[in-house]
Amino acid sequence: MSACSRPDWPETVATPLTRLRAERPRVHVLTNFVAMNVSANALLALGAVPSMTFRADTVADFVCSARALVVNLGMLDPEREAAIGQAVPAASALGLPWVLDPVKVERSGPRRDLALRLLRMRPAVLRANAAEVETLAGLKGLEGAERLAREFDCVVALTGATDIVTDGEQTVRLAGGSPLMDRVTAMGCAASAVVGAFLAVERDACGAALAALASFAAAGGIAAGRARGPGSFEPELLDALFALEPGQIMEKVEFR
Amino acid sequence: MSACSRPDWPETVATPLTRLRAERPRVHVLTNFVAMNVSANALLALGAVPSMTFRADTVADFVCSARALVVNLGMLDPEREAAIGQAVPAASALGLPWVLDPVKVERSGPRRDLALRLLRMRPAVLRANAAEVETLAGLKGLEGAERLAREFDCVVALTGATDIVTDGEQTVRLAGGSPLMDRVTAMGCAASAVVGAFLAVERDACGAALAALASFAAAGGIAAGRARGPGSFEPELLDALFALEPGQIMEKVEFR
Amino acid sequence: MSACSRPDWPETVATPLTRLRAERPRVHVLTNFVAMNVSANALLALGAVPSMTFRADTVADFVCSARALVVNLGMLDPEREAAIGQAVPAASALGLPWVLDPVKVERSGPRRDLALRLLRMRPAVLRANAAEVETLAGLKGLEGAERLAREFDCVVALTGATDIVTDGEQTVRLAGGSPLMDRVTAMGCAASAVVGAFLAVERDACGAALAALASFAAAGGIAAGRARGPGSFEPELLDALFALEPGQIMEKVEFR
Repeated sequence: MSACSRPDWPETVATPLTRLRAERPRVHVLTNFVAMNVSANALLALGAVPSMTFRADTVADFVCSARALVVNLGMLDPEREAAIGQAVPAASALGLPWVLDPVKVERSGPRRDLALRLLRMRPAVLRANAAEVETLAGLKGLEGAERLAREFDCVVALTGATDIVTDGEQTVRLAGGSPLMDRVTAMGCAASAVVGAFLAVERDACGAALAALASFAAAGGIAAGRARGPGSFEPELLDALFALEPGQIMEKVEFR
Repeated sequence: MSACSRPDWPETVATPLTRLRAERPRVHVLTNFVAMNVSANALLALGAVPSMTFRADTVADFVCSARALVVNLGMLDPEREAAIGQAVPAASALGLPWVLDPVKVERSGPRRDLALRLLRMRPAVLRANAAEVETLAGLKGLEGAERLAREFDCVVALTGATDIVTDGEQTVRLAGGSPLMDRVTAMGCAASAVVGAFLAVERDACGAALAALASFAAAGGIAAGRARGPGSFEPELLDALFALEPGQIMEKVEFR
Repeated sequence: MSACSRPDWPETVATPLTRLRAERPRVHVLTNFVAMNVSANALLALGAVPSMTFRADTVADFVCSARALVVNLGMLDPEREAAIGQAVPAASALGLPWVLDPVKVERSGPRRDLALRLLRMRPAVLRANAAEVETLAGLKGLEGAERLAREFDCVVALTGATDIVTDGEQTVRLAGGSPLMDRVTAMGCAASAVVGAFLAVERDACGAALAALASFAAAGGIAAGRARGPGSFEPELLDALFALEPGQIMEKVEFR
């Protein structure tokens, strides 16, 4: 029974956050150039240790000494695509969980096809927005997310004004965060990296996705209360992730 | 008659800024690695929606669903150069306006030659600094800018302590901004991206360049008043772009 | 007699900082994608003028018009590796000093081998952390740093809670900075870039490394006193580097 069907939120959220800070797991993140810096900083703020090499002939060395992998398709260049082809089988062989973020598949047919091939390689979590889920599922919103979760036997984390986490059977909704997040680049990519960090310490993929999105949304809510706009929002978000207490999550995020 | 010869500034500046926020146009930006994050954030702060893929075999898909293109030659690698070779003809075929930013052509002969070849492909706006204009025109300052505008039938936006926008016949000067901008990387690149965003909603290239540089300079002036140095300047600039009112532009920027 | 053996700190630190601001030297930085933006901003804040092109067929043009070179192996891709192969001989031929930052050599055998090959090409300074020094020297801590300095006839700057600068015979320790620096990505890479900037104006490699690490640590200490967490730390660090006075260095950093 996954965490999606047992909503003891304080426990679901607090335990992996505490473990993340105590264990400081290595997470290898294959992501786009715009998202690299803020994703690395989000992981460091939470206590994880990121690496980001995307060279095909060395990426397996980095994956093998990490505890989770993040695969983000934004701005995909041939070198990173080749690295994904090495990293995903390396992670699978070791039983490492991995996250897929199918950035902007609605704008490129070849990228959509690659995302579908990667889904067949069993990511633990697919983290996507509404347009990406619709493109991959052929159905909108929750229905699309549930279809993808069932077809590919993964957890789908569909983020937006309200976030949805579903294993295809049970679904949890999280309300929180801030509209300012749409005005800062790579916030979705950073959220995917954070899902990877939680997967490193929590093997129940529903629990990891919930804890990650709840932590990110809570920090976003705290940051929005302190920021004057999207520029000051990003440093405030990192400060909030660094100092985040489980109690703040329960206060800032509504689970439904 | 271009906007350079009819200086009804409030109208020239206010209308495209309002349209940018209302229409949220997609802008495809081919830029260097240092400039990607801040350029994306500047566009998002103003309301545009950036994409930045530079893979040669997918860039045309992204350009075709965008309303303007930005071509920046900083740190040009072979993959992005190949992408430029796909993106510019795709933009031209669709009648999409594009901006050329010939970063550091004074430091590399091959890059200067590429910039000259691209100028023959009819960018709507060339956005450059003094050293770049001099290298491309063989003449300094306003004379160089006017020569390039006439020779390549484009608008030239020469930025510096005072910005110049010229169509080769009429010239407008803008004074504003802040010397701190020289101490923050990629400010010129971000200004070029902002010109692209204004071109997406304002087809008069003089008007778009004026509105873009005036908005950027006004936000820079506001940010400089709030920042303690170049580190706090960047988030303040993004906050100021996000909240910018046409009235602030008239107050912070002097048109001559 | 190198600066490591004559500890007249105010002079050692103040003179190159003043020269850096007055001369505004160009520094070419071959670094990883995560570190580019913050490294460029750290150099600009201090007064240096960075360039970062890593294309193999143009990098020599940039090196030849620069006064120092920085070679960072983080996220090393084939294009940047080829550029290093052009840039280091170009720098050597011109007598330009260069810094080597062997990022994460403990995680990849091929990268460790490359770092050792580059050490034989005579960098002025090796800037590394404890794990990297141990991997390259086969010995831990100060012993490892001294062995590398003697074997490769370079200055080794080993950074951590306390920084060590050694020429293999004489050693100086600097205590300062902030534990928050471990929670912000690319701080070590930015420190290496700053060493490059000081080498551009101070040819005694011990003196340049000491002045660079002392400046960086002092700015870090000032920033930590103002920041709420790792997000606000980075803009505060850049503001502090911009405004740094020699007197603050003597106050914030302890030399032993």
